[in-house]
Amino acid sequence: MKKLIGVDLGGTTVKFAILTAEGEVQQKWSIETDIQNEGKNIIPNIIKSINHRLDMYGLLVDDFSGIGMGSPGSVDINKGTVIGAYNLNWRTLQLVKEQIEEGTGISFYIDNDANVAALGEQWKGAGEGSGNVVFVTLGTGVGGGIVSEGNLVHGVGAAGEIGHINVDPSGYECTCGNVGCLETVASATGVVRLARDLSKEYAGDSKLKWFIDDGQEVTAKTVFDQAKKGDQLAEMVVDKFHSYLGLACGNIANVLHPETIVIGGGVSAAGEMLINGVEKYFNKYAFPPIKTSTKIKLAKLGNDAGVIGAASLVKIHE
Amino acid sequence: MKKLIGVDLGGTTVKFAILTAEGEVQQKWSIETDIQNEGKNIIPNIIKSINHRLDMYGLLVDDFSGIGMGSPGSVDINKGTVIGAYNLNWRTLQLVKEQIEEGTGISFYIDNDANVAALGEQWKGAGEGSGNVVFVTLGTGVGGGIVSEGNLVHGVGAAGEIGHINVDPSGYECTCGNVGCLETVASATGVVRLARDLSKEYAGDSKLKWFIDDGQEVTAKTVFDQAKKGDQLAEMVVDKFHSYLGLACGNIANVLHPETIVIGGGVSAAGEMLINGVEKYFNKYAFPPIKTSTKIKLAKLGNDAGVIGAASLVKIHE
Repeated sequence: MKKLIGVDLGGTTVKFAILTAEGEVQQKWSIETDIQNEGKNIIPNIIKSINHRLDMYGLLVDDFSGIGMGSPGSVDINKGTVIGAYNLNWRTLQLVKEQIEEGTGISFYIDNDANVAALGEQWKGAGEGSGNVVFVTLGTGVGGGIVSEGNLVHGVGAAGEIGHINVDPSGYECTCGNVGCLETVASATGVVRLARDLSKEYAGDSKLKWFIDDGQEVTAKTVFDQAKKGDQLAEMVVDKFHSYLGLACGNIANVLHPETIVIGGGVSAAGEMLINGVEKYFNKYAFPPIKTSTKIKLAKLGNDAGVIGAASLVKIHE
Repeated sequence: MKKLIGVDLGGTTVKFAILTAEGEVQQKWSIETDIQNEGKNIIPNIIKSINHRLDMYGLLVDDFSGIGMGSPGSVDINKGTVIGAYNLNWRTLQLVKEQIEEGTGISFYIDNDANVAALGEQWKGAGEGSGNVVFVTLGTGVGGGIVSEGNLVHGVGAAGEIGHINVDPSGYECTCGNVGCLETVASATGVVRLARDLSKEYAGDSKLKWFIDDGQEVTAKTVFDQAKKGDQLAEMVVDKFHSYLGLACGNIANVLHPETIVIGGGVSAAGEMLINGVEKYFNKYAFPPIKTSTKIKLAKLGNDAGVIGAASLVKIHE
């Protein structure tokens, strides 16, 4: 069986892996992402790095069935192009597939980074190979990817915009222009926003409130740490965050009845507390036969979800 | 090309159609559903009716590639069985596939009625053959079906429970045991519930309020008719109904980015007023690139969606 190459293109690092066809990671490495000069060195550097590693490991073009890549920005999966990836300084259309296939001689497939991470968790992570998995990533923003009936869902192109599910019609303004999107309350900055807002009305004793009023740096981690220590304001904030996320997960499940909803991204470092809290509200909002069968789990692959899911793009297209 | 048979099994009528492989209806007929004696005559009557019509039209078993059927209740699509179809008096497990294949000699496929109607609208109706279509049916209850990336979505089994999407965490109690489900405000009885509730607080002049206070029969149609005539209370009720339905449609689209959301069922007789009203709120809640590309349309096939979609089950399994 031929091997796979997975590439996870991010704003600071490009991660690479060589995998067996079964998804076992055999080699991993990374390079810095050079976003200078409108990011025009990014693709040449990726090509150089792949060719260099193949030489190093004594591997040939024919040993690989393909390269898969996850990218930020707006990805055209059919044409293999990317546009509007602002953290890469890619404002204009990038002919990624064309350049990488020419530079390496290996077939190339691409999708957006959240979809690729979803595929990774679905194939080798918390989704355990199920054909019906929803991936929610809680980071600077909130993103996601949907695998339904064994297929990655694109719809017209932008499926998986889980961060823009409306969870509060009278909620906060979102960068997208709408009001009350999940992202406004469940991203790292969203959790802090909830904390600042609830602290204004909170009259009791709270270290979190003291941090905020004292002008100290407060992150999502501060909030979760204080909640774990029993700070009542922090517990209220975390409960509110869980209610919004549980509502979104419940409604996704009412539509798709996935086997597993996998929660990843930086904010998911809150761990079992997060899963238990989301489950409490998921059980309130999911249709009874669904709540008893859809499982909510923490992501398993961490930073490897991208390269593993990217590699699986090759298998999808084989 | 062989022909298809579509069967739409309902609580009062069983509808049948013979279709070409391309989905053109060539013959249609129906029989009464005999739900007496725990519905034990239903399947024998279906078999008799199919065999009788084949004789009548001079058609042979070999002229057909299969029979597809939509059924109420809990359908096991792999085993071809139905259980818990209370409007048919089917409380125990019914071996539908086994009996119909034995009785007709033709291959048989089954799915639940909402999924089958979704397939019908997706194939030959307002979905116009797109691979990404969501069907919402507003009747006594609210149901639905999802076609994503060309596949009917079952998930673990209960996908498409659109009526149980939560649209108001502090809303009305639902028969499912949860609170605030779309069905509590967007079904035929849900619209009337909204009308009765809003009328209590409404102090102005309103024929709808007068009907309610006078103890007259008020249906969803009464409400929509009065709204079309400019009754302000009725307009408020309809606007609220649109806001809930627009929220649910927006959130479904944020997850799946379908090409079309098709709205059918008795309540959709409100027509263009409904589509315009739902669009107003859909545009508020859907992610900007999605709101500009997902279309909301009225169902086109009416009562034929079931038989046409049922027939398409045969094509899916070919």
